Amino acid sequence: MRDLRPLLAPHSVAVIGASSNTSKSGGILFKNLVDGGFPGALYPINPRGGEILGRRAYPNLRMVPDPVDLVFIVLPRAGVLEAVQDCLANHAHAACIVAGGFAEAGAEGRRAEEELRRLVRSAGLLTIGPNTIGAISADARMMGSFVPFPEWQAGPVSIFCQTGIFAGAAMVQFMTQKVQRFGIGKAIDAGNKIDVDEVDFLHFAGGDPTTKIIALYVEDIRDPQGFFPLAEHVAKEKPIVVLKPGRTPLGAAASAYHTASRPMDDRELAAALRRYGLVRADDVEDFFAFLKAFSYLPPPKGRRVGVVTYSGALGVMAMDELADAGLAAAEYSPTTLQAISKIVYDWQPLVNPLDLWAAIDAAGPRAAHELPLDAVMGDPQVDMVLALPLTPPNADFPETREVFAGLRERHPGTPLAMVITGGAIRERWLRDIEGLDIPVFPTTRLAVRALAALVRNAENRRAR
Amino acid sequence: MRDLRPLLAPHSVAVIGASSNTSKSGGILFKNLVDGGFPGALYPINPRGGEILGRRAYPNLRMVPDPVDLVFIVLPRAGVLEAVQDCLANHAHAACIVAGGFAEAGAEGRRAEEELRRLVRSAGLLTIGPNTIGAISADARMMGSFVPFPEWQAGPVSIFCQTGIFAGAAMVQFMTQKVQRFGIGKAIDAGNKIDVDEVDFLHFAGGDPTTKIIALYVEDIRDPQGFFPLAEHVAKEKPIVVLKPGRTPLGAAASAYHTASRPMDDRELAAALRRYGLVRADDVEDFFAFLKAFSYLPPPKGRRVGVVTYSGALGVMAMDELADAGLAAAEYSPTTLQAISKIVYDWQPLVNPLDLWAAIDAAGPRAAHELPLDAVMGDPQVDMVLALPLTPPNADFPETREVFAGLRERHPGTPLAMVITGGAIRERWLRDIEGLDIPVFPTTRLAVRALAALVRNAENRRAR
Repeated sequence: MRDLRPLLAPHSVAVIGASSNTSKSGGILFKNLVDGGFPGALYPINPRGGEILGRRAYPNLRMVPDPVDLVFIVLPRAGVLEAVQDCLANHAHAACIVAGGFAEAGAEGRRAEEELRRLVRSAGLLTIGPNTIGAISADARMMGSFVPFPEWQAGPVSIFCQTGIFAGAAMVQFMTQKVQRFGIGKAIDAGNKIDVDEVDFLHFAGGDPTTKIIALYVEDIRDPQGFFPLAEHVAKEKPIVVLKPGRTPLGAAASAYHTASRPMDDRELAAALRRYGLVRADDVEDFFAFLKAFSYLPPPKGRRVGVVTYSGALGVMAMDELADAGLAAAEYSPTTLQAISKIVYDWQPLVNPLDLWAAIDAAGPRAAHELPLDAVMGDPQVDMVLALPLTPPNADFPETREVFAGLRERHPGTPLAMVITGGAIRERWLRDIEGLDIPVFPTTRLAVRALAALVRNAENRRAR
Repeated sequence: MRDLRPLLAPHSVAVIGASSNTSKSGGILFKNLVDGGFPGALYPINPRGGEILGRRAYPNLRMVPDPVDLVFIVLPRAGVLEAVQDCLANHAHAACIVAGGFAEAGAEGRRAEEELRRLVRSAGLLTIGPNTIGAISADARMMGSFVPFPEWQAGPVSIFCQTGIFAGAAMVQFMTQKVQRFGIGKAIDAGNKIDVDEVDFLHFAGGDPTTKIIALYVEDIRDPQGFFPLAEHVAKEKPIVVLKPGRTPLGAAASAYHTASRPMDDRELAAALRRYGLVRADDVEDFFAFLKAFSYLPPPKGRRVGVVTYSGALGVMAMDELADAGLAAAEYSPTTLQAISKIVYDWQPLVNPLDLWAAIDAAGPRAAHELPLDAVMGDPQVDMVLALPLTPPNADFPETREVFAGLRERHPGTPLAMVITGGAIRERWLRDIEGLDIPVFPTTRLAVRALAALVRNAENRRAR
């Protein structure tokens, strides 16, 4: 078992290729480390020496007197091998090789990568890359990427990716959302994955006290015999969400080109993920939705969903999604029905899905939301709740935050997910409930899939 | 065959329940008609008489001297029957009954609805509702809804809905989007559907010269023997997109409560939709995505998709989606490969999916997008193109609009769909390409599903 702390909780960091020129990757990466407030020793390495952003630059890593925990190598491919040798001379613990042009880049690149692999493995240098955007530990204030993330939010999720620039673009899109984000404490982009892999990461994340949820984007699982037993053990404590594309023969063939991954039979993989208690995301949308659900919500006690809707049509479509996802429609208890009967017209059918549009008129918008959600979230026959409000002006009420904060407070054990349909008022609701850990999904389908992911994980834990 | 022109292209409109009070449905609906610039005669009906928004108000419809094409009845349930009798006395051609509280509202409501149904049917009064948000003909500048749509965009889609308020909330959300909308020329919300139904609508929309695409949200198909042969005929000329929830037993049961729809075997329905050449949307997201694709794009000549990506990971996931949707990966022709080989490193594998991330560095961002898309869109072995750009700063170029406008102009017959991943620059690209009829989807899955909908429709037309 390898200790990834030099990579994700380093005390000292060097950047080979650091410069004052922030149009170059090395310049941006170094600036991101400085701006991110890395509290440890920070060594810019640049042949010209001098100072970079107020830090003394060393012409060569070999001149740094102490062993460095983590060295970022931000040089073109041609300079990488020598830089790795400098790392070994410095007795550095870990390296992050940013450059591309290796195995993804033809025969010559594959040869260079093989040489690199032999070198770092024989020396025991913990290495991520080549072809990576870097490593980030928001927990350690180490923003080690050439992609700037001024709005990164720290939190319970730790992510391992086997990809290049896509991780950066997706993360920028996610981290520039104004609402409905979740925090990511640690993120490694392993790039071509010549050394540190998903098994090392699981070891680390499983034992890391601030990691509560583990996310893996992998194009292959290099050592299934090592991976699955460990994953089974870790998944007892922490949800593991896996996005493994190449589900289809067409996708698997493309994956072989992309990362030289050996195709793995997808049905076997799917069965193994299920058997060992991991949660599979089918695409990027699933991946972020599931991680948000795990970040915001407690584990459901069963698979019975109470659907509280303000549109019969949405209620019908939600039932279709529940059926697709293998969840059940809760049957409300008499206490719940009695409570709700007070605010609805007497002709209103009190069933699940519970259509409360008419109650807005009968009881007023606030009561029509607060009272039934309170009853359903508190119902012992309900394991989780899907609320589907609409936001035309007559359904709006000013105390949105107060009402939803109260619901979350009074029912901390009941997961509540929402889909909100409407225009400008919908946007205000989203801002109002921000920070209350109520996930809002763009579609009923995604909301239900995310709830089903919670259920799979909870059932897995109970089964052990 | 019934003529729906009084409903969707009326020369004169009356509003029973119009008032100056714009906090009431009747007041809002009348104001929306006035603000929407309805060019025909407009009669507010209000017992107090006087003037409403500068129009002479009649105390009763019976006092309006001429027969009115379309009468909106915006009264509580108790007043509806008498208002309908007024319509008959006026020899009005069509009525839109906004009030709820009928079949969706218990035994008494069902009796009232049955009475209403008998009355309008025996009199031959074209009726939509009860329980509807109204009818809109942007083509005729008739904004007949109590939901305000100041930003409604007219266009080639005509929509028929069998639902209440949900249609309004979903449409408000759609019409307040800043980019990536499509135009809707006519929209009817049939509500509880006591009279005008999907068969009438198909007759109308099939023959309406400004309707190019037909959209149906229905909870049941009342007369399958009438519907499917007509749909088959219409679908030869115009795509018909159908969202019919209640796909699953759970959903069908909820639908029975919601609209008293008789459950229809979903496998039979799915088979019929396929056999007669309609395109099915599984959920609201599909529905809007498919309609956008039909609005923006020409029919593809086959099922071969060229994937032009700037991320190997996205390329792999796109291949999975193609396989799921039954589409094929195009094989690029030698001319295409030769053209692309000029801007990529020589180690770059020239395959589909074509990963051009490295070309951004090698050839510059503009060339790395324009040249390969030009080649692939012009390739006779490619039927449609899925472009998956990333927008970190180094991939950006200022001439986005010029480049994509040129691509659309040079290859008018090749559908191009996109998914763009990134933060603020992504938002700028979306604004830049607005109006070029290039659909951008939130996920690769949705983009591929929309392309597959185009293919199904094109294959159906070729088969006839």
